Amino acid sequence: MNNWIFDPIKKLDEQARNEALERQQQLTKPMGSLGRLEQIAVDIAAMQGGIPAINTPYICIFAADHGLATSGVSAFPQEVTAQMVANFASGGAAISVLAKSLLCPFEIVNLGTVTPTDFPGVSNEFIAAGTANMLNTNAMSETQCSQALAVGKKYLLHAKELGCELFIGGDMGIANTSAATVLASAISGESVAALTGPGTGLDDEGVQRKVAILEKVLAKHTSEGLSPEKMLQKMGGFEIAALVGSYIAAAQRGVIILVDGFICTAAAMVAIAIAPESRNWMIFSHGSAEPGHKLMLDYLQVTPVLDLGMRLGEGSGAAVCVPVIQLACKLHTQMATFAEAAVAGKLDAH
Amino acid sequence: MNNWIFDPIKKLDEQARNEALERQQQLTKPMGSLGRLEQIAVDIAAMQGGIPAINTPYICIFAADHGLATSGVSAFPQEVTAQMVANFASGGAAISVLAKSLLCPFEIVNLGTVTPTDFPGVSNEFIAAGTANMLNTNAMSETQCSQALAVGKKYLLHAKELGCELFIGGDMGIANTSAATVLASAISGESVAALTGPGTGLDDEGVQRKVAILEKVLAKHTSEGLSPEKMLQKMGGFEIAALVGSYIAAAQRGVIILVDGFICTAAAMVAIAIAPESRNWMIFSHGSAEPGHKLMLDYLQVTPVLDLGMRLGEGSGAAVCVPVIQLACKLHTQMATFAEAAVAGKLDAH
Repeated sequence: MNNWIFDPIKKLDEQARNEALERQQQLTKPMGSLGRLEQIAVDIAAMQGGIPAINTPYICIFAADHGLATSGVSAFPQEVTAQMVANFASGGAAISVLAKSLLCPFEIVNLGTVTPTDFPGVSNEFIAAGTANMLNTNAMSETQCSQALAVGKKYLLHAKELGCELFIGGDMGIANTSAATVLASAISGESVAALTGPGTGLDDEGVQRKVAILEKVLAKHTSEGLSPEKMLQKMGGFEIAALVGSYIAAAQRGVIILVDGFICTAAAMVAIAIAPESRNWMIFSHGSAEPGHKLMLDYLQVTPVLDLGMRLGEGSGAAVCVPVIQLACKLHTQMATFAEAAVAGKLDAH
Repeated sequence: MNNWIFDPIKKLDEQARNEALERQQQLTKPMGSLGRLEQIAVDIAAMQGGIPAINTPYICIFAADHGLATSGVSAFPQEVTAQMVANFASGGAAISVLAKSLLCPFEIVNLGTVTPTDFPGVSNEFIAAGTANMLNTNAMSETQCSQALAVGKKYLLHAKELGCELFIGGDMGIANTSAATVLASAISGESVAALTGPGTGLDDEGVQRKVAILEKVLAKHTSEGLSPEKMLQKMGGFEIAALVGSYIAAAQRGVIILVDGFICTAAAMVAIAIAPESRNWMIFSHGSAEPGHKLMLDYLQVTPVLDLGMRLGEGSGAAVCVPVIQLACKLHTQMATFAEAAVAGKLDAH
């Protein structure tokens, strides 16, 4: 049922990359002086097979509850997940404001909150009223995990159908930093203690309790040679599995993935563990204030574009990054070359 | 003639700041989770005396040549300054592309290039065909420095007349990292060797030669108790003085200043040395790849919003920062509060 996640990933266009690199060296600026923006434009040229352009991103929030929340790993009550889904739909959440500002399609997908939601603007893809408590049992059954992966693929296909060049997945789920932490630990080998942070706002004592609980979860579920798709099923969440599915489906079809913060990076780690080349299609948008995020980015050997101390989730950091990426593409395509502008080049070394 | 630079700086609205801080704590997100974006919105609320909003920035490039360029401190020939002015006007430069993307007024002001320019779209405010070589004499006469300061004020007044809420000054002038370096050294006490970098692209040997020349410049012109306005006259440039004038005039009138990279930060240091409260009106947009920039930002005790490894000048880093600042304001004003959205707050500590 999940076989599609092992399908081949689209190759990058290395000729387009080389042409873009060459063009960057001819533009009217000292070589390298646009810094990270040059690399972004060149990478996108390789992804798009030619002139880099992000006209319309697509933002999709996946929401679901976590059984583990009842064990006291979060500063907020579980009912907040559904309340925030309502807030997404009515336009009051950070990501709603950002999507409106970016004039882009904005999907809100509920895969299973403990309180049902029935609002205009929310797509219901109900799997269960939250995952099971992974302190006691697997978070998802195999079937549930497959369903959640398929939901991710479905909305990625929708993004592609709309002609969106870039996919932003967002997350909402009270306790999902816990699921993200154990997944990141299982994949990277980093300790739970190093990866665990305050999430939405635990105090020090709360963080210590969270570490103890997550160490139990990890000890219960991991074993030598456990596959990343089994890790996801045992310790993930519906919204995290949907993110993984959307990322893999995007990389299979050549849709650019703009990865948000802590939760999305954990999903990206799972996607890369399943399909290593999916990493070629990912741009890491920002460094989260959640302390473990730096370890995750170091493990992936990536540097995020922005570092604004955000830790909200919802895809918000990725959304803030969109204009920077769009400007990188515009600079690449619209600047004049030294020849076009009749500007003298660098002096010979003297 | 320069007396206006000592006129009082506009006060921030501390009540508006406190109201904005309070609002940030009521928005539907964990407290502090928008990171730097919260601080930007609150600072702008204090500057604007109420609801923060940047509808239209104003970008003004000041261009001029430097006598010191003939002493071999730059990788590019002096004629490039005027050629780049033409490139700004014809739309091919990075800042031209960015200004067009941001849909904002874009002024190009030539205060004195060695090659005269006469293009549509360039405002001529001719002072002289470049400054004098400060290895031998003062870069500017007192009158010239006053003229350049006044040009900065003139274009700031234009920005205010157009209703622009935010002013971006940009620079173009071959050898102007040299002038910026000696000014930053004279003000901060940091050594020239620590502050000197490759500029547009010197190799190591070139940087060493640049250090030796700039040490001579500094030894010639500085003395105990030298005022910042005299430092500017002796070791600045027309475009740097125009930036200083525009910044001070902006702070006197309550126009927000978005400071670009190395050259603009040196101008900001001079402005702050003349009028310390002008710093209240400055947002530092990005950390430059020019290595001395970090020392300048440390001296000012500020953290830039972005860190993209850019080192182009022209106001380009500040322009890339504009959408991030605009989104910070929109999040502040458009997000729902917990009460409006009926979202539960944080659990009591347990």
